[in-house]
Amino acid sequence: MSDTAWIETTAARAAEFRRMHQGPGMLVMPNAWDAASARTFEAAGFPAIATTSGGVAVSLGYQDHEGAPVEEMLAAAGRITRAVAVPVTLDLEAGYGLPPAELIQRTVALGAVGCNLEDSDHHGEAVLVGADAHAERIAAARAAARALGVDLVLNSRIDVFIHRMGTPEEQLAEGVRRGQLYRDAGADCLYPIGLRDEAILAAFVKAVGVPVNINTRRNGGIPLTRLAAIGVRRVTFATSLFRDLQDVLGGFATEIRDALPLDAVRKSSA
Amino acid sequence: MSDTAWIETTAARAAEFRRMHQGPGMLVMPNAWDAASARTFEAAGFPAIATTSGGVAVSLGYQDHEGAPVEEMLAAAGRITRAVAVPVTLDLEAGYGLPPAELIQRTVALGAVGCNLEDSDHHGEAVLVGADAHAERIAAARAAARALGVDLVLNSRIDVFIHRMGTPEEQLAEGVRRGQLYRDAGADCLYPIGLRDEAILAAFVKAVGVPVNINTRRNGGIPLTRLAAIGVRRVTFATSLFRDLQDVLGGFATEIRDALPLDAVRKSSA
Repeated sequence: MSDTAWIETTAARAAEFRRMHQGPGMLVMPNAWDAASARTFEAAGFPAIATTSGGVAVSLGYQDHEGAPVEEMLAAAGRITRAVAVPVTLDLEAGYGLPPAELIQRTVALGAVGCNLEDSDHHGEAVLVGADAHAERIAAARAAARALGVDLVLNSRIDVFIHRMGTPEEQLAEGVRRGQLYRDAGADCLYPIGLRDEAILAAFVKAVGVPVNINTRRNGGIPLTRLAAIGVRRVTFATSLFRDLQDVLGGFATEIRDALPLDAVRKSSA
Repeated sequence: MSDTAWIETTAARAAEFRRMHQGPGMLVMPNAWDAASARTFEAAGFPAIATTSGGVAVSLGYQDHEGAPVEEMLAAAGRITRAVAVPVTLDLEAGYGLPPAELIQRTVALGAVGCNLEDSDHHGEAVLVGADAHAERIAAARAAARALGVDLVLNSRIDVFIHRMGTPEEQLAEGVRRGQLYRDAGADCLYPIGLRDEAILAAFVKAVGVPVNINTRRNGGIPLTRLAAIGVRRVTFATSLFRDLQDVLGGFATEIRDALPLDAVRKSSA
């Protein structure tokens, strides 16, 4: 495919993905960590797929929170986008220290049509980067997407809630302040990861006035019907499906070990 | 680590892995497809881990049977060997068209201590490659391992059974003929994949006189206690654990879809 055709195809897919945030229904995306999980979700009928940096990193043998080399993370992202026909949005953590323009160019080159950028400070002294500094990254990412001609869906994480910074009311106030800044800088969607209180979530949704992404899990999260009633527009599962599946695999492994007669178990000589 | 230290470490691990084939118990290895699955199996107490080319290829977005580029398959193998401390043996399919010496050098460079080589003919006209041609590859692989100073455990697959070539008696006769040839060429272990008849398996084990690897599955294979009684020395699960886990993930996906209120499902506009 020529560069021009690639941009046109990706731009059309980005527009389709953008429409999925505008209702009437709620966009629900499971989070894939490899090509196989992405294909499984596509086959189940989900209209779009998000990646989970935690699942990708651990499946590659690294820790979450930018513990994996960026090149390996992006290569894994490319395997996921190639594996499915539906739109894919990438969890890019805090951007791996890459300039926003390069990050957006790489995202488009991989065929992805959206990305998450979080305001946690993985490499510095603080818990979060300054709100203004993160807003500048969002603005730079938006400008880079415009320059490329692909209107990527920028989902900005707000990590005040997951880090439990202050009282719930303080979290809400700071979360809304950051959310409004990121929105004004060009974020299409805001993701207050870890926000689990329905009343605070409802207040957040009302205050920011753009689509809100919330994470849930198979067991124990706010039910999808409740999230829809609150006005959440996009739901993802973060690393929870990956972790649930690893637990199942651990169960398979234990079950096999338990089926071994003692004299047939060849232990390591270590 | 210097090259010399690397060779010494790998040689010691290969010797440890070789001892696991000598009893008294049966060596049981689940098959990993990524770093996370390998770590899960190691944590469950398995003394060594095998890879599954089928699981690796599909998790990367390709088909089994050498559908994936060799560089991607070997990179994935390296992620698995780096992730665990226990010995790892690689499923190298039919060798990806690489010369045996290069294949063995790459295997050692990845820190693996054994490999599978199969006699299926993925790229030619026949079902199997000629027995003499496969025996020559085994001999060349053995010579390459010796030259490197790492006594890798060479596990030669015999694909007569999985392809159901002839009557069960014909499969046994051709399987034993090939097994003896591969053994004499330097194979340490023989793997008649797909052999599910206990009487024929017992006859095969008796006739070849070297450790035999058989594949089973969580549900429906010959029980581990029976395999041990027959004298099987090594048991693996081929792609079955990967497939079982993909089925579980498909169930998760369906369960999430079914939990969505109809008006909250945002279908693809396609």
